[in-house]
Amino acid sequence: MLVVMNAHATDEQVRAVCKRIEELGFRAHPIPGAQRTAIGITGNEGEIEPGTLDELPGVVEVIRVSKPYKLVSRDVKEDPTIVRFKNGASIGGEELAIVAGPCAIESRKQAFAIAEHLAHQGVRFFRGGAYKPRTSPYSFQGLGEEGLKIMADIRDQFCLLIVTEAVDNESLDLVDHYADVIQIGARNMQNFSLLKKAGRAKKPVLLKRGMSATLEEFLMAAEYVMSEGNYNVILCERGVRTFADHTRNTLDLSVVPAVHRLSHLPILVDPSHGTGVRSKVTPLSRASVAVGADGLIVEVHNEPDRALSDGKQSLYLEQFDELIGQVRQIAPVVQRRVAPAGTVAARLDPASTR
Amino acid sequence: MLVVMNAHATDEQVRAVCKRIEELGFRAHPIPGAQRTAIGITGNEGEIEPGTLDELPGVVEVIRVSKPYKLVSRDVKEDPTIVRFKNGASIGGEELAIVAGPCAIESRKQAFAIAEHLAHQGVRFFRGGAYKPRTSPYSFQGLGEEGLKIMADIRDQFCLLIVTEAVDNESLDLVDHYADVIQIGARNMQNFSLLKKAGRAKKPVLLKRGMSATLEEFLMAAEYVMSEGNYNVILCERGVRTFADHTRNTLDLSVVPAVHRLSHLPILVDPSHGTGVRSKVTPLSRASVAVGADGLIVEVHNEPDRALSDGKQSLYLEQFDELIGQVRQIAPVVQRRVAPAGTVAARLDPASTR
Amino acid sequence: MLVVMNAHATDEQVRAVCKRIEELGFRAHPIPGAQRTAIGITGNEGEIEPGTLDELPGVVEVIRVSKPYKLVSRDVKEDPTIVRFKNGASIGGEELAIVAGPCAIESRKQAFAIAEHLAHQGVRFFRGGAYKPRTSPYSFQGLGEEGLKIMADIRDQFCLLIVTEAVDNESLDLVDHYADVIQIGARNMQNFSLLKKAGRAKKPVLLKRGMSATLEEFLMAAEYVMSEGNYNVILCERGVRTFADHTRNTLDLSVVPAVHRLSHLPILVDPSHGTGVRSKVTPLSRASVAVGADGLIVEVHNEPDRALSDGKQSLYLEQFDELIGQVRQIAPVVQRRVAPAGTVAARLDPASTR
Amino acid sequence: MLVVMNAHATDEQVRAVCKRIEELGFRAHPIPGAQRTAIGITGNEGEIEPGTLDELPGVVEVIRVSKPYKLVSRDVKEDPTIVRFKNGASIGGEELAIVAGPCAIESRKQAFAIAEHLAHQGVRFFRGGAYKPRTSPYSFQGLGEEGLKIMADIRDQFCLLIVTEAVDNESLDLVDHYADVIQIGARNMQNFSLLKKAGRAKKPVLLKRGMSATLEEFLMAAEYVMSEGNYNVILCERGVRTFADHTRNTLDLSVVPAVHRLSHLPILVDPSHGTGVRSKVTPLSRASVAVGADGLIVEVHNEPDRALSDGKQSLYLEQFDELIGQVRQIAPVVQRRVAPAGTVAARLDPASTR
Repeated sequence: MLVVMNAHATDEQVRAVCKRIEELGFRAHPIPGAQRTAIGITGNEGEIEPGTLDELPGVVEVIRVSKPYKLVSRDVKEDPTIVRFKNGASIGGEELAIVAGPCAIESRKQAFAIAEHLAHQGVRFFRGGAYKPRTSPYSFQGLGEEGLKIMADIRDQFCLLIVTEAVDNESLDLVDHYADVIQIGARNMQNFSLLKKAGRAKKPVLLKRGMSATLEEFLMAAEYVMSEGNYNVILCERGVRTFADHTRNTLDLSVVPAVHRLSHLPILVDPSHGTGVRSKVTPLSRASVAVGADGLIVEVHNEPDRALSDGKQSLYLEQFDELIGQVRQIAPVVQRRVAPAGTVAARLDPASTR
Repeated sequence: MLVVMNAHATDEQVRAVCKRIEELGFRAHPIPGAQRTAIGITGNEGEIEPGTLDELPGVVEVIRVSKPYKLVSRDVKEDPTIVRFKNGASIGGEELAIVAGPCAIESRKQAFAIAEHLAHQGVRFFRGGAYKPRTSPYSFQGLGEEGLKIMADIRDQFCLLIVTEAVDNESLDLVDHYADVIQIGARNMQNFSLLKKAGRAKKPVLLKRGMSATLEEFLMAAEYVMSEGNYNVILCERGVRTFADHTRNTLDLSVVPAVHRLSHLPILVDPSHGTGVRSKVTPLSRASVAVGADGLIVEVHNEPDRALSDGKQSLYLEQFDELIGQVRQIAPVVQRRVAPAGTVAARLDPASTR
Repeated sequence: MLVVMNAHATDEQVRAVCKRIEELGFRAHPIPGAQRTAIGITGNEGEIEPGTLDELPGVVEVIRVSKPYKLVSRDVKEDPTIVRFKNGASIGGEELAIVAGPCAIESRKQAFAIAEHLAHQGVRFFRGGAYKPRTSPYSFQGLGEEGLKIMADIRDQFCLLIVTEAVDNESLDLVDHYADVIQIGARNMQNFSLLKKAGRAKKPVLLKRGMSATLEEFLMAAEYVMSEGNYNVILCERGVRTFADHTRNTLDLSVVPAVHRLSHLPILVDPSHGTGVRSKVTPLSRASVAVGADGLIVEVHNEPDRALSDGKQSLYLEQFDELIGQVRQIAPVVQRRVAPAGTVAARLDPASTR
Repeated sequence: MLVVMNAHATDEQVRAVCKRIEELGFRAHPIPGAQRTAIGITGNEGEIEPGTLDELPGVVEVIRVSKPYKLVSRDVKEDPTIVRFKNGASIGGEELAIVAGPCAIESRKQAFAIAEHLAHQGVRFFRGGAYKPRTSPYSFQGLGEEGLKIMADIRDQFCLLIVTEAVDNESLDLVDHYADVIQIGARNMQNFSLLKKAGRAKKPVLLKRGMSATLEEFLMAAEYVMSEGNYNVILCERGVRTFADHTRNTLDLSVVPAVHRLSHLPILVDPSHGTGVRSKVTPLSRASVAVGADGLIVEVHNEPDRALSDGKQSLYLEQFDELIGQVRQIAPVVQRRVAPAGTVAARLDPASTR
């Protein structure tokens, strides 16, 4: 259910409605919009009896939400969600969010080499795995907290926001502490316990679509995070599993306009996992921007052939530069732009002539 | 196997090698390239003994082709195939091929109304079904030859090239007679009997990917057509079948760069069948061009809500104009262009002020 | 629409109703049942106006069929269809139909060796391909009519019914002439032109499920055959295409009870194509019978390692004997039986001591 | 790598080899077999140098295991694993393991009613969810520890072994405490953190196949559990996600013989989730036993129409009795048997005349 407040409703009126909802044993989720505030109501226990809230001061309307997802729905919040960060970057706004970096943090040297290159290209988000969910227990599983510390230093040095994956409660606490965006991986998209914990974290959550998740399941996973009170959720398409064998996964770009139609949440595309093949990453990055994605998440490595994981799908640094160049040209067609190269560096080093 | 002739080999030398191949009970497929001619060898009966052809005049090298497809392979023909048409249009070249029109030809009036609109937008290829493969025997199955005649008149009136589907031997003969491109639909991608017949037709063949065809199967289907001597094959991605239910099919755009890597054949994308939902056609058209497709095939209708088939996925005329406008902006990023609006009309009516 | 006649309706009354239907521009399909006759009405042109047929003599009721398939539906014919053959064999009755033989007829010697073995095991149906739909144009495509003649001789010699695939109009005419059951392969399940022609043939049709056909599409393909007047349709599950890679296809046994619920048509299972791996054929054959299939179609070869096609999935003769032995034990649990070993041979050679 | 000890190797020799392996920084997994002991070696850090272990007393051979899974592999342990329980029941042996019960524990009354019925049918394993991973955060999520306590009482009262799902670290500790088998659900099959924790638990682990897990991924998930030292892993096929829409999932029975070929671990089948439709559960149960599964896990409810979850796929009590009766008949064909009805009750109440 959704309570729509009138345009002039006071904060106090909103608080009063929320209080009433909580007294009835439900959760209230005030959602401020451009025109008015709405209040989502969620709860395990059925529905509030009709008429209970309609007459409270400031209430215009109480509406039933017929879709199984509520807080993620456009019905509940019409304006697109823009997740904003301290350094001025955002996800979901006019500027495309470019998230780039290695699959895994392997060493300080490797991570800094890549980060420096990316920062000079105008990238604002650095990705790197400290906890790697690997198919084999005998594969490299990431540097753990050591990797997080390296990334925290990268943030300080290059003014990059850190996006990294949490795989369980322990790592989630650490990621919440060290990083700027908590990534939930495809394999954990329906790890509801982890989703709820992410919903209680302070940082925005980047939620990757599961390998065989329907759109509804994907949105319901986001609903789990939001239902715990964390409204800064960013979705991410990363390819689904099909019979096709020319790429590791089949990138489903149609999900981007489908998400935008049903939900106010932003959605990125990960063409690196989406294809699993280096030569396909740039074409599919162009396509992702053209289809209307809110940004890209791309694996880049200074020495892909020596990468400890996912080397086959990681771009060489020069390939990434080419990708950014092409994406920059396409962005305006979809009313977007890419941050200019050198801007971050400029901010860090005002004397820079770049 | 593939015989590579030297750059200065004479036509006579090429003919002599072909003759020798045929005498050995195989088929020779001379493939002229920018630098040199190659001769593909195909046949049911094993391989030609090593050494048999190496010493013939003009032969540089005889190489085994390890992939199951031969004539479609980039190994055999490095330059991309450009299918050229009388009116100056082409598929596979710098100009994107825009194929548009209704799902089915329903009446002369409907078809002409749509065609006129498209011609003024610079479209050069008109699509429309005269033979419709329908899931139900009780659904509208197309106007048959009457539909072909209407399209032939459209060609004369609007200088549009006609692309239409053949579903069996009889309709293939008629399509070969009336139309400019013979479409083989997804359901017939492995109707090998029909593919062979298309391989003996005079007109280029547009081959749609089967609903669950792997890339190799798709290329092998093209090989069937080429092995019969028709080298003007145009591939078309139209979505594959997956568990995802937010679109009718899942459009697999990664197949475009994958085809371009393995084959010299051009590939179009059909976002109408690829999504089955009108509101997704324009975003996926942008993505298709951005990923590097050689063109688009799009369903457009003057009255989608009254269409006898596929109305849900057909664009309104104005939506198509918007699509073309957006695609026109993206094309240069991938070194392509879209024919300017009004050009066809201009050719037809030099006094036109449009 | 469906006209239900009363239990005592005369043949003349049935004919009169059919005549009226045809006069209205529709097709009438009289369907005799155990209790009463029903008359299915099909046609391209919409529906017959309510009230038109209700008052004709012998008519009990005129009902709309809400499902897109009509003639294949249990709504239209409650009793299961049993396809009966001259030599006493049947498909859909209490006796399981065991169809066995090589993938392709390679030579008279090979085919006879296999057939003799099978006949002694009580098998009543012999399968073998004369026209092979192969992924590559350069693979062995079958012996054609020569193969059909070999199979016709096998029928005479071993009292086996011949099941073989038709791939186009020409081969369908020949198969209809030489064989006992016309197989339509998975790749042609939506070759509607071929389905219609099979619907006008005299022999029963074995229709294999397409690689990615939904149940509804599968039943609609059968509807195409029936709508042309051939009511002897036998369905066949042969595996669908999925991401799973431990078998060539994923055998979907749940489709067997699903078909039996919605349709009166019998359904066989083909565990050879369904798995593509010899060691999986016997376990899945047991499972197919246990799930309730009306029979099996299995590839058997006297020398699988030398087979010209599908050797990897063909059983050795001894493996087939073991399979039959196991299936024979499971059959009674599902109220079925397998013809006893030696019966066919016994009929052919009354002096036999087997 | 795998160290094969000779048939007469002493325990001391085995211990000495293990000690050496640990000193080298690896983990040693002694695996006693019928004939000899083998020692699996696992570790994150590459391989032990050739020659290092070959000459230790009692060592016959040191072999490389080429497959990515080691401890789950038949190469490492030829004899099938039989998981044995205190009350004499086992999984993987001649007696089929029948695991039955409601989707979720809803109340003591409901759970006891169902358990009593099942115990009288000879069932030895009771399943019921206390922690339910639900697509929606607003759906019933299970009774939690209260549900576990109810099941513990059921064990005491009916001599049934308790199988129930753990969804995170906290619930895993509780399930390990209260239940007899720790179930890891399909959505958590690649929750590697949870798998490792299950690998350190005391109770056997029932690992369900992920919705789109390949066979290799499935076995690697089991390897995660085993690599932590818990060798009592039971696999479970529960349907995979495909395009097919006549069942909720597509039950992939071919995975049963495929698992048995590659691994020594037992595998059950869950036809309830595998089909999602009550009327398909019994036919697919028959098929599962016929294909060679080590047992079944089936949802049964005393009032399916009032079930708080999965009611549509839960059997009525009488339907379960019929299922057991049919399965009992098929079992001997695959050298299995089902525990006789009444045996458990008899043990509990020796005076019973049942």
